[in-house]
This record gives sequence, structure tokens and C-alpha cells, in this order.
Amino acid sequence: MDTSSFLTSLLTSFLIFVVLVLLFLYLSQRPGNEVVYFPNRILKGLEPREGARGPFAWVRGAFGASEQELVDLAGVDAAVYIVFLGSVLAILVFSGLILLPMLLSVNATDNYIESSQSSQTNFTSFDKLSMSNIAQRSNRMWAHLLAVYWVSLVTFYILWKAYKHVSELRTTALTAAETKPERFAVLVRDIPPLPPGQTRKEQVDSYFRQLHPDSFYRSLVVTDNKEANKIWQELENYKKKLAHAEAVFVENEKVRPKHRTGFLGLIGQKVDTIEFCNQQIKELTPKLEAEQKTTLKEKQLASAIVFFNSWPAAVSASQTIHSQPLDKWSVMAAPEPRELLWENLSIPFFVRLVRQYAIYVVVFFTIFFYMIPITFISAFTTLANLRKYLPFLKPIVDQAEIKTVLEAYLPQIALLVFLAILPMILLALSKLEGIPSLSHAIRATSGKYFYFTVLNVFIGVTLASGLFKSFKQFVKHANTIVPTLGKSLPGSTNFFITYVALKFFVGYGLELSRLVPLILYHLKRRFLCKTDAELKEAWAPGDFNYATKVPNDMLITTVVMCYSVIAPVIIPFGVLYFAIGWVVLRNQALKVYVPSYESYGRMWPHIHTRILASLVLFQITMIGYLGVKYFYSTALLIPLPILSVIFGYICSKRFYQSFAFVPLEIASQQPKQSPNLEAAFEAYVPPCLSTEKFEDIEQYEDARSEVSRTASAVYATA
Amino acid sequence: MDTSSFLTSLLTSFLIFVVLVLLFLYLSQRPGNEVVYFPNRILKGLEPREGARGPFAWVRGAFGASEQELVDLAGVDAAVYIVFLGSVLAILVFSGLILLPMLLSVNATDNYIESSQSSQTNFTSFDKLSMSNIAQRSNRMWAHLLAVYWVSLVTFYILWKAYKHVSELRTTALTAAETKPERFAVLVRDIPPLPPGQTRKEQVDSYFRQLHPDSFYRSLVVTDNKEANKIWQELENYKKKLAHAEAVFVENEKVRPKHRTGFLGLIGQKVDTIEFCNQQIKELTPKLEAEQKTTLKEKQLASAIVFFNSWPAAVSASQTIHSQPLDKWSVMAAPEPRELLWENLSIPFFVRLVRQYAIYVVVFFTIFFYMIPITFISAFTTLANLRKYLPFLKPIVDQAEIKTVLEAYLPQIALLVFLAILPMILLALSKLEGIPSLSHAIRATSGKYFYFTVLNVFIGVTLASGLFKSFKQFVKHANTIVPTLGKSLPGSTNFFITYVALKFFVGYGLELSRLVPLILYHLKRRFLCKTDAELKEAWAPGDFNYATKVPNDMLITTVVMCYSVIAPVIIPFGVLYFAIGWVVLRNQALKVYVPSYESYGRMWPHIHTRILASLVLFQITMIGYLGVKYFYSTALLIPLPILSVIFGYICSKRFYQSFAFVPLEIASQQPKQSPNLEAAFEAYVPPCLSTEKFEDIEQYEDARSEVSRTASAVYATA
Repeated sequence: MDTSSFLTSLLTSFLIFVVLVLLFLYLSQRPGNEVVYFPNRILKGLEPREGARGPFAWVRGAFGASEQELVDLAGVDAAVYIVFLGSVLAILVFSGLILLPMLLSVNATDNYIESSQSSQTNFTSFDKLSMSNIAQRSNRMWAHLLAVYWVSLVTFYILWKAYKHVSELRTTALTAAETKPERFAVLVRDIPPLPPGQTRKEQVDSYFRQLHPDSFYRSLVVTDNKEANKIWQELENYKKKLAHAEAVFVENEKVRPKHRTGFLGLIGQKVDTIEFCNQQIKELTPKLEAEQKTTLKEKQLASAIVFFNSWPAAVSASQTIHSQPLDKWSVMAAPEPRELLWENLSIPFFVRLVRQYAIYVVVFFTIFFYMIPITFISAFTTLANLRKYLPFLKPIVDQAEIKTVLEAYLPQIALLVFLAILPMILLALSKLEGIPSLSHAIRATSGKYFYFTVLNVFIGVTLASGLFKSFKQFVKHANTIVPTLGKSLPGSTNFFITYVALKFFVGYGLELSRLVPLILYHLKRRFLCKTDAELKEAWAPGDFNYATKVPNDMLITTVVMCYSVIAPVIIPFGVLYFAIGWVVLRNQALKVYVPSYESYGRMWPHIHTRILASLVLFQITMIGYLGVKYFYSTALLIPLPILSVIFGYICSKRFYQSFAFVPLEIASQQPKQSPNLEAAFEAYVPPCLSTEKFEDIEQYEDARSEVSRTASAVYATA
Repeated sequence: MDTSSFLTSLLTSFLIFVVLVLLFLYLSQRPGNEVVYFPNRILKGLEPREGARGPFAWVRGAFGASEQELVDLAGVDAAVYIVFLGSVLAILVFSGLILLPMLLSVNATDNYIESSQSSQTNFTSFDKLSMSNIAQRSNRMWAHLLAVYWVSLVTFYILWKAYKHVSELRTTALTAAETKPERFAVLVRDIPPLPPGQTRKEQVDSYFRQLHPDSFYRSLVVTDNKEANKIWQELENYKKKLAHAEAVFVENEKVRPKHRTGFLGLIGQKVDTIEFCNQQIKELTPKLEAEQKTTLKEKQLASAIVFFNSWPAAVSASQTIHSQPLDKWSVMAAPEPRELLWENLSIPFFVRLVRQYAIYVVVFFTIFFYMIPITFISAFTTLANLRKYLPFLKPIVDQAEIKTVLEAYLPQIALLVFLAILPMILLALSKLEGIPSLSHAIRATSGKYFYFTVLNVFIGVTLASGLFKSFKQFVKHANTIVPTLGKSLPGSTNFFITYVALKFFVGYGLELSRLVPLILYHLKRRFLCKTDAELKEAWAPGDFNYATKVPNDMLITTVVMCYSVIAPVIIPFGVLYFAIGWVVLRNQALKVYVPSYESYGRMWPHIHTRILASLVLFQITMIGYLGVKYFYSTALLIPLPILSVIFGYICSKRFYQSFAFVPLEIASQQPKQSPNLEAAFEAYVPPCLSTEKFEDIEQYEDARSEVSRTASAVYATA
């Protein structure tokens, strides 16, 4: 990539960014767009545009908001994500303060490139600022060696501070938050087969009553809700359709809306929609009730949610091993009701283990060999095949111009489609592992996506030239991977600088301006939505998509870190990425996104480990790169990766457990107000089973009297 | 090693074994030797020689005893050790049943050695039975490939069965055993700095009373007992000396014994022993009392043992994270009082972590570079230096013959001394890690010693020829380690067969005949012991030395497994080793050794992992060996090591936690008799602080009334 195309690329990205920011400033002030630019505030019942006006009020707002406000408005998870951006920013700023003056002057004053390649002209002025300009065996490389140490030490320091900060954030939030249903609940899986003459509920109750005589409250046996859920969904759909049809009926001046009952409303008998929906609802309601009864009685599965009468009791129970065969009665703290993956709760112990490994293997092959199915698919999706299997495309495909374009781009389109749906595939795979909660599945997805991006984008691009040409030789000498990586690095510097610039200028521009949601919302509002509920659904902002956001930021972290010493000019771009990201995403957290779960920052240990992994990759790359430059003191870098691993171990010892579990201290600090256990229980009843009469009153009475008895006994002894 | 010297070596070992067994049969029947051959039975108050007589009664006894008897007489740990021997035996027998007929016939009918080395004569007839006799690229190697699979599958099966069996053994023992002090105790470390105006005891009590209002009983703050212990030891010594002197006085017909007070009783003033001891005891007793008071009041450390009023409560508390900064208030189930390493209890969290890593580094260097200090020491311990620094050796050293021998053997002696004291060094290092209990320290030592033996004996001997000659080339091509290992293997077969034979014939012969303890006992009895206590000390049998026994057996396991396919003739020797070991050590467990702690089989996960590690080493070795024989289907073996790792992971998921912790289910099954909490508390008071008046009576009263109040409240609500 020569200098002019490099600068063109940067300039284009910058112009797009300016245009998008201007669009944002204009559009966000237009009335009617509040629901796109301030949905979180609206849903929280706040005034959308508060405080000072002006084009940069949003920047001031994002800067000015305290972390506590962030936690209150966007949840701990969003605050932790912002801490992640801030931490990488701090690492890059502190590294840059030393590296930029020191290394640029050391690099620029050497003349290796000119002397060795005087005849060639394919080096840019940027290359003169990078390590390519340092002669082999030069003593100047002591500066680079020290720089690697500096970056590592800065990373250790910032990461330690950040872990401590996030840990306190979590503690504060846990202590401050109001009583929540999941605090009294423990998820029990792998319940052994039913002994004869007992119901599942009796089995669970007697087991926990025996082990926790003072604190057991009641249990909710997980049921197979597939059928009930299906009927309930159908019922809800008809209810929505009815509301829609009634709105249309009013709008169209009493012309009764009609639709066809067949596939997609395209075929089948034409019916009066209102009448049809009413009839369906009437039919489905008793069907649902019958199914609810069957489900509750006959479809009980081998897992349950067990409720305790206090938070400390539930915390203690969730951390204690209950049964000697560990594949029976396994307990864990219950996830929030809204993020429970019901279908995973009853997967048996060994099936979970096997699935986990099977998924790892599948993901491994997806990451390494994803090009093979894509090649296969694009070979299959030739125009001839398209014409054959999708005949309605014939008129389009047969036009000469379209044909040319399609033939040229079909493979690329297949690749793009694959990359677009990859996060969804990975999320589906993670859920298949048998993970019980959405937040955990998203963390697992994020990890998988991280490996994909780092392997395919970073290592892939870097090694592309050097590696695949000599693949056979490479396999024979697996220990040459580090030198190869080292040799190939400087060639890709400019590519990655433009990549980072594109990511932050265009990426954050799109994020801030929310063009796609805006257009979608206005289209839906005009053509589809008739009722208030439909309108609200049309602008529902969703939450931060951590599963892709975190790995993408992590990729930038990895790239900038790995190039920070070889080509220090990349550091300012990295700083810009995380600085703009910090402001923009703070704004989005405060005003746009609505969290769909609250895991109190359990993403952090995951982020921490991956930043450390990037650091180790950087250290190993530098060992390789300084090694191929025949700098013999390179050996002094070998302790660094070992130190990083030890640092990671110490951090996990010091912090990890308090993220995986709630410490008893925190649970006990909660004010001793009598908790509403019945509400906690009801929060866990799945919506498709939630009716007024789903359990007989007597059982309720039993439970209630029992609570008051136990509770009073406990308080008497306290 | 040629055939004749190989057979000579085997025969010699066998003869020594026969002689030692005959000695055992004769000596164990002699009166007066019961305390050497049956100490465990004597200490348990049983008739030493029970049941049938005859030379092989002991074999029948060892065979006939049920596992329950073993547990009752020797503890769960010894039973688990015997299960280990039995499991490896089963693995080798099942492997041998298929491998011996299949591989021997496949190997013997080929003629690679004869055809390729027709001119040379340095192959033994054993070599014809090994894989050396298979031609390169031969299809006969399919048999060896299948054999590797067979051994792996057999190992998986036996290990799974054994883990399950040991796990049940542990459960049964935990459920059946009588109430023990450690069941009510939790060890608390890393107590934060004392808040102003509170004593350590108040701090601990208020913290635990707040978190466990219903189940906290009382606490015992760990104190710095160094000074008190020193005085107490001195006092005990004088008491023993006094008893000895009094016995001598009676024996010598009223001649009062005298001794010198200086170094080793060699120099200094001569005094009347009885008088002197009496006076010292009189002086030391009030000194000890004063020191006890000071210790209890002023030398309180940042750790404590906290007692709960029931086993389930203590189990729950020990598994629950208490404090948000994990480096504060860390809790774990308390070890038995007798195996507590008091001096380690108060080492702060981060110091423990740092120490652990520092020790790992030290052990790493000890294992890899132990030859360097030994060379250094033997260079230093030249005769000239010995004469210079230890002048009293001069007359001996100056004799010509002794001089020659010493000069020739000094380096070897240094090596032998090093190998003899290595387990002690490793135990001391393990204790320095900050491990709180002896059983844990012994497991850690066993692990370190395992790496030492496998690396230095197995890999060292095997690679010695191939590796060190071409060390430089080796470093350059680290990926050649597997082929190198593969190439060097067959050459060492005979060495290892004789090694295994030596180990079991001579090792178990010595073990059974107990010649060394017998001689020591009779010497002590004749020349040193005067009182009953001294006599009892002289025959105290000690316990199984797991720290060296387990790694040594594991080395044999590794060797036999790794050679099982290459040279199947080693299998019968391995079978003999573990079969004789099983009988001999069962006998020793039943009659000789007295356990010094009971960890309920916590050694097993450690053993299990190391057997698996041996299996993986075997699988990798076979991949290397079949690879260098250019057998291209070798790739089919690659899934095996991966499978082994997954198997290990599944086992640890399924079993490990129930070894690390006590499941609540087991703790709750205990009959609800009112436990003697005061006795549990007193069991943890260190002997040097244990007097009748060490705490004021009122505090006792407080505690007692509190228990009965809490206990009654708990039972009321149950």
C-alpha cells in the first residue's frame, strides 16, 4: 500500500465520519426521532433531551455523567464495558507517551531501508518511522526491548487497577440494588431419577428440607414447556393481530380487514380478520389452560429452582456441594428469570460435558476451515443453479448486466453473508453447550468470536503472504512460526492503520448516527405499525451486542498492541479509536441501549484474560521479530510472557471467585427487611404457564404458613 | 546390556528376595520382635499374631482381609494406596492378556534385526521379541497401533472404576466415622488488620457471628507459639531425661547418674542428672506459664480456627466465599489438629502466592540442573578440603587405601547423599509454600518427586545417549523431541526390566523383612532405652511414606506402560511388581504402619492425574516411535492424547470436588446427637499452650451457655 492510497483511505474514512456526525446532530434534534436517539431515557421515564442544548451537548453529557449515573441508567454490564474501553485507552496513552518520542527518534535517525533497498522505491515515509528502518544486530534495539517492558508493565498496572475498580463496582451495585428474585433462588440440575411413589416436587422438597431445615422456602420444578409455549405464542400472535386489525378497521372507516389463512397470507381461504382472530383466541384459551395443567403435572423435568428465605442462605447453598456423586443435584446461583435458557436447564451432566467438547471441535473447524464450506456454497450457488431451483429469479438473472455482476460477486457475497451470520451461529452453538443463562452464552460467544477475529484477521492477514506459500515447509518446522510472524509483520502496518481508522471513523459514525435503526423505524411506522404496542416494538433499541462488540474492540487492542513497538505511529490511531469509542458508547449507554440482563460485570474476567492474551501475543511476536533481526539480547524478553501468565494467575486468585459467586459478606449486609418471597417465586414462573389458577390454593397456603413459621424461628434465634 | 549379564542381574535380585523373605519368616516368629512386625496391631490393642500359623499365614492374612478391615486398621489413605496398586495391576493384567500373545507373535515372526544387522551381534534374543524386529513401513504395525488403543481403553475403564470406588470408599468412611473435631472447625486465614479498640478474638467473633448468626460457636485465634513451644520442648526433654536418669539410678544400684551440661554432654560442668533435671523443671514450669499468657494475649496472628455448632454448618461455611476482597477472610475446611502446620497458618495471601511460584522455580531448577550443585559440592569436598576444615578426620583420610577409595567415590557419595535427602528437601520446600496441612504438603512433595523421577530416570536414561550428544541441534529443532525419544527407547528396554526387577525383588524384600528398623530397634533397646516411653518411641513404626512411595510406584507405572507395546516382555515384570507390592503392602498396612493423619483418600485425584499423565506420555512416545518407523497410519493415534485429556477433565468434573470438599448430603446424614463442641475446641489447642487455666473460666461459661441456647433454637426450628 503506497503513501497516496494510504492517505486517501484515511481521508475518505474521516469524511464519512464528519458526514455521519453532522447527520446525527441534525437528526437527533428533529422532533419524532426521540425514540431512536433517546429510547433508554424514555423507557426510564426521563425527559429525552435534558440540560444544555447545542451541537456538542451530547459530548458534555457523555463526559459529565458519573459512573454511578451510568450504572443507574445502563446497568453494571455497560459500565464495565466502558471501563474496558477506558482501560485500553489508558494503556495506549501511557505506552504512547514513552514509546512515541523514544522509538520514533530512534527509528527515524537510522537509515537501514535506504541503504539496503536504495534501488527500490516501494517504501513509504511511514516505513522510515518503523522498526524496518533499524539495521540487523543494531544496538538501537535496546530501545525497543525496553519499550516492550514498558508496555507490559503499563498493562499490568492498568489491568490490576481496572480489575480492582470493577470488583468494587460489582460489590457496590450488589449491595445497593433493591431485593431481586434471583437472590433467593438456587438453580438445581441433574436431579436423580424419581424414587417410586414420589412426585418430582416432593423429591426436591424433601431433599432440600432435609439439608436446609431452617432456610428452605419452596421449589419450582422445571417443566417441558415447548407445547404450552407454542400455544401461548400463537395466542399472543392472534391477540396482536386482533389489535392491529381493529386499528385498521377504525382507520379505514369501518371496512372490515380480511386476510388469507394460508402460507404468509398469500394463499388459502379469505376470512374476516377480526372475526377469525376472536374465534382463534376463544379456541386457544382453554387449550392453553389444559396444556398448562398437563405440563405442570406430567412434563416435569430433572431440574428445579429452589427458593430460600434469605439471601445469605441462598448464597451459602449455591456454593456448597450437595451430593457425593457430583453429577447429581448440582447447584448454582440462579440466573435472572429474564435470561434463563429454559430449554438448557434439564440437560444431564454428562450430555453437557460431551456437548461442550463437541462444540469446541465444531468451533475449531469453523475458525480454521470456514473457507471450505463457503467455497462449496459459492460453487453451488452458480447462476445456473439459481435459475434451476429458484425459477422466479429467472427474469432478473437473465439480464446481461446483472448476470455479469452476480457472477463476479457471488463468492464474495457468500463470504459476507457468512461473516454477517457468524455471531449468530456462534451464539446458537454456545447455547447448544447447555449453558443455563443468556449472559453466560454471550460470554462464550464473545470468546469464540475473539479467536475467530484474531486468528483470521490479525494472524491471517499478517501471515497471508509468508505462510500459505510455504505451507508444507511450515508444517515441518512448526517452531518457525514465531520468526515467520516476525518477518511478515511490518509489511501489514499500513493495512492495519487504515483498518483501525475505518473501524472508528465509519464504525462509530454509524453507531452514533443510528442511520439503520432510524430508517427501519420510520419505514415500520409508516407502513406496518397500527397500534401503540407495535410502535414500541418498532423502536425497541435492544442492548449492547457484547458478543461482537467486545471481540471487535479486542481485535483492535491486539493489533495496536502488537504493532505498538514495531510501528509506533499506530498508537495515536488506537488512542483515537478508544477515545472516540469511550465518548460515543457512553452516550449510547446513557441514552440508547436498554440492557436485557444484568450480570453485575461478569464479563470482566473474560475481558481481562483476553487483554492479557493479546499482551502475551505481543510479547511473543516481539521475541520473534527481534530474534529475526539477530538481536541477541532478545532472550531478556523471555521472562515477560511467563510474568504475564503469573500475573493472570494472581489476578484470578485475587478476584475471579468474587465474580463467579457472591461473597457471604455482601449478602449479609442487605437490610433485614422481610423479603417478598412469593413475588420472587412468581418471577420465575414462565409467562406461558402464568395464570391465576395454575396451582391449587392449598399449596400456596402451605408454603406461606411455612415461611412465616421458619422466618420467625430464624429471627428468634438471631 | 547383553543377555548373560541381564539374566545374572535378574537372578541376583531374585536370590536376595528369597533370602529376605526367609529372614522375615524366621524373624517375625521370634518372640520380642512383635513390636517390629506387628506394631499397628499392638497399638490398636489387638493380639499381634492372630489366626492361622504357618510360613504363609501372612499372605493369606493380607489376601483375606476385607477392605473394611483395612480401613478400620490402617485408615482410608492406606486403603486408597492399595487401590492404586490394585488398579495399576489390573491395567497391566488386562493389557498383557491381549498384548503378550498378539505382539510377541507379530514381533517374533518378523526378521528385521537379522536382515539389517546380519554382521553385528549386539542384539539379544529379547530384542527379537520387541518392536525393533519390525521392518520400517511394515503393515505389522497395525497390531501395535491397536495395542496402544487397547492399553488406553483399559486404562480409562480401570481408572474410572477406581475413581468411583475410591469416591464411595471416602463417602462410606466419612459417613461411618465417629464425630471428629475437624468436622466443626473452619480454618480462617488472611484476617484483615485489627480495627482500633478491638482484640483479634472480638474481631473474629463479631465477623462470624454476623455472617452465621445461627451456627457460630466460638473461635480460636492462632498465636505465634515459637517461644512457648521452645520452652515446652525443653521441659518435655528434661522430663524424659529425668525418667531416664531415675531408671538408670534404679538399674545401677543407687549410683546417681551424672552428665555434663555443655555441648552434646561432652564438655562443661558435671552435674547430678536427677537433681539438675528436677531443678530445671521447677524453673521452666512458671516460665512456660508466663510465656503461655504472653502468647495468648500478645502474640495473636491473623488467622483463626472457627467452630460451628454442627457439621453441615461448618461444611457450608467452609465452601462459601466470605469476603469480597478474596485476599481477606479466606476460609477452608480445617485439617485435623494433628496434621496442622501451625507456622504456615498466618502467611498472608500474596506471600503464599509468591512463595508458591518461587518454589516452583526452585524445584524446576533442582529437577533440571541438580547435577550442577552436586558437581560443585563434590569439587569442594576434596580430600584436601576435608583435612583442612574437619581436622579430626585427618588420621583416617591419611591412610593410603582409604584415600584411594574416597577419592574415587566422593562424587558418587555426594550424589547418593543428595538422592537420599531429596525427598526431605522437597518436603521442606513444599511446606515453605505455605500449605496449611501435612497431608497436603505430602501430596505436593509427591508431585515434585514424580516429576524428578520421570524426568531424570525415565526420560534421562532413555535419551541419555541420543539427546546430550546433539544438544545444540536439538534446541534448534525442538519438534524432534518425540522422534528422538522414539528412537532411543528400544535400547533401554533391558535396563528397565532389570530396574523393575531390582525394585520389586530387593525393595519389597527389604520392606517385608524390615531389617533396618529391626536392627535399629534392637540397638536402641540394648544401649539407649531405659523407660517404657523410650522403648515405645524406639519401635514406633511411622506411617507409609507416601511422598516417596507413590512417585516410585508411578515411575514403574510410567516405564512399564511406555514399554508395554515396544517390548511387551516388560509387562510380566510390571505385573509381578504390583502383585507382590499389593500383598506385601497390604500386610504392612494391616500390621505395621500407623497413619499419622487421615485425609480420607485425598491422595487419589493426585494419583489419578499422574497415571493419566503416564498414559499420555506413553501415547506420545508411541506416536513418535511409530512415526520414526515411517508407519503412516500413526496419525490415527493422534486423537488418543486428546481423548486422555478429555477423560481427565470429565473425571475431575465428576469426582474432584467431592474430594476437595465434603458434600452437604454426607454432613447432614450424621446422626443428630448433640456434639461435644468443647472437646472439638480443646483438640485444636496446641500442646504447648494446653494447661488447665489458660483461659479464664468465665469465657468458658459464656461459650457453653451460648451453645446450648443456639443448639436448642436450631433443633426447635428443625
